[in-house]
Amino acid sequence: MTNLINRQFCLASRPVGYLKEENLVFREVPVPQPSEGEVLVRVVYLSLDPTNRIWMSNMDQYMPPVELDAVMRGITLGVVEESRNPKFAKGDLVTGMLGWQEYALAEGTTGSAVRKLPRDMNAPLPAFLGPLGLTGCTAYFGLLDVGKPSEGDTVVVSAAAGAVGSIVGQIAKIKGCRAVGIAGSAEKCRLLTGELGFDAAINYKTDDLLAALDEACPDGIDVYFENVGGKILDAVLTRMNLHARVVLCGLISQYNATRPKPGPFNFSQILMKRVHLEGFIVLDYITRWPEAIHAIAGWIDEGRMHYAVDIVEGLENAPAALGKLFDGTNKGKLIIKVSEEP
Amino acid sequence: MTNLINRQFCLASRPVGYLKEENLVFREVPVPQPSEGEVLVRVVYLSLDPTNRIWMSNMDQYMPPVELDAVMRGITLGVVEESRNPKFAKGDLVTGMLGWQEYALAEGTTGSAVRKLPRDMNAPLPAFLGPLGLTGCTAYFGLLDVGKPSEGDTVVVSAAAGAVGSIVGQIAKIKGCRAVGIAGSAEKCRLLTGELGFDAAINYKTDDLLAALDEACPDGIDVYFENVGGKILDAVLTRMNLHARVVLCGLISQYNATRPKPGPFNFSQILMKRVHLEGFIVLDYITRWPEAIHAIAGWIDEGRMHYAVDIVEGLENAPAALGKLFDGTNKGKLIIKVSEEP
Repeated sequence: MTNLINRQFCLASRPVGYLKEENLVFREVPVPQPSEGEVLVRVVYLSLDPTNRIWMSNMDQYMPPVELDAVMRGITLGVVEESRNPKFAKGDLVTGMLGWQEYALAEGTTGSAVRKLPRDMNAPLPAFLGPLGLTGCTAYFGLLDVGKPSEGDTVVVSAAAGAVGSIVGQIAKIKGCRAVGIAGSAEKCRLLTGELGFDAAINYKTDDLLAALDEACPDGIDVYFENVGGKILDAVLTRMNLHARVVLCGLISQYNATRPKPGPFNFSQILMKRVHLEGFIVLDYITRWPEAIHAIAGWIDEGRMHYAVDIVEGLENAPAALGKLFDGTNKGKLIIKVSEEP
Repeated sequence: MTNLINRQFCLASRPVGYLKEENLVFREVPVPQPSEGEVLVRVVYLSLDPTNRIWMSNMDQYMPPVELDAVMRGITLGVVEESRNPKFAKGDLVTGMLGWQEYALAEGTTGSAVRKLPRDMNAPLPAFLGPLGLTGCTAYFGLLDVGKPSEGDTVVVSAAAGAVGSIVGQIAKIKGCRAVGIAGSAEKCRLLTGELGFDAAINYKTDDLLAALDEACPDGIDVYFENVGGKILDAVLTRMNLHARVVLCGLISQYNATRPKPGPFNFSQILMKRVHLEGFIVLDYITRWPEAIHAIAGWIDEGRMHYAVDIVEGLENAPAALGKLFDGTNKGKLIIKVSEEP
């Protein structure tokens, strides 16, 4: 390797509330050498996702929390620089959880598993961390497998202008549903009902939520794709149809909480309306990801699905950029460009 | 009719908090005469159920609230005194929602539907308002159809010594599960692990809930049958296994609330553990009730299922008796004896 230095963010302390500078430490360490069975990957793009904040905490969660002093966990796309694994060759493009760093060992006995990009798709590389990656798979399986919408159903999604939410609404439209998005600015709402083709959008910061739901969902709500929690969930629960489904995909309003947050005050509506509410983590569907990625790629090719990416240059900017997911300023799939595309 | 007087409870005002005497008014009205297609039923037994308190309120619920000045809704067992409907004969025993009164018209164009008791079962009449009625069907379909337990699963039920909970745990045992009951007194816990055959019982009033759950559920919780809500639900949510199921059948801790109650503080665990939580109302399964009733009757005949009834004499005592469902003093299926068995 010509570049012998690997720069990385390690978790120095667990954030209380919003991530602060001191919670992550930026380190320079030698680029590791692959052992038998391993590959050395240069990270090109790092995906920033709300779940990163969960991993930094020690709450009871769906994966082990990132350990203190360990490299921060993150989903990445990279290029194989050196391979001692017969399944990978130098130059292969791969995705995997290689973390907030410039280089990482993968595969072998201790490295994270990586997957080669599909060969038959010609999309810009960042798309493979967005609609053609975990983000798209989250929207696809969460909506279709857990939400189980039928044609004509009303599908409501929160954080609708976000990376997952925007795809959820578009899939709902493709499946013949009424798509209603909840977002936090007039600009985002215009994006939803404009380019993204949602039937209606609600600005939760300025609209009267219940009145807006009544107007946007004249036939009630059949599927709610939940990314947020808190008062939005409470409002939506009062408008659910009998036997409606709630896909509990995220609770972004709670990830920076410094004290316990109550569940929905209208929890009893789950009983009264016989709602089916299910927690959903896309990793459970990993063997079926190709199905989602091919479907979404097809819709993009046909012009039926649109997406945006928000690329921030430089690994050193990752901590500050992560805040955009929680303060409402993020637009499109948030990705850090760590190094140049090959 | 020799008795020309029908005594009945009507809803005078909606209770705030616990039911008070002034909320129900006891009236004497003439016994009605059946029109063509109707039958006149003399009520023998009236079932008292936690859901009665919901019906008295004007919260958003699964049936319309009882209207003010109307006869209080209730599930009853009675005998046909006079029939102008070819499907029913004088002397037939029937069940249906005939309300808190001594006589009621049923069938026809305006009367409540009633169902004849199964002819092939020889059980004491109160059993048809308990394990062989709505109570048993609630336990059966809630546990088996929504909870979907597999052999070896750990099933936890709250209000476990109650009419529904005690059957839930016994069905869990019959299906090869570990049954753990949560109840509110040492005496109830002894009943659970004694006569009813639960593997373990937790006294939520005196035990440390989390420690007790750890001891009672060494392999975690696969199915939680929820009748209570509040702090019990919060504790259980921290001990759920991956892809566990929560049958949301009741939230008795909230029915007398005078201010909004928060949902579970550990709501996020539904996401992290990918829990399937579903609201359940047994009326949705009414066409399948015979399946449950025959299964439960078989288990009772085989000595594999036990139940208790708590019979209070006299319709005039119904309001006071209802309080037993909420103050922890009820033991067994609570039934008002309104008139003599035929």
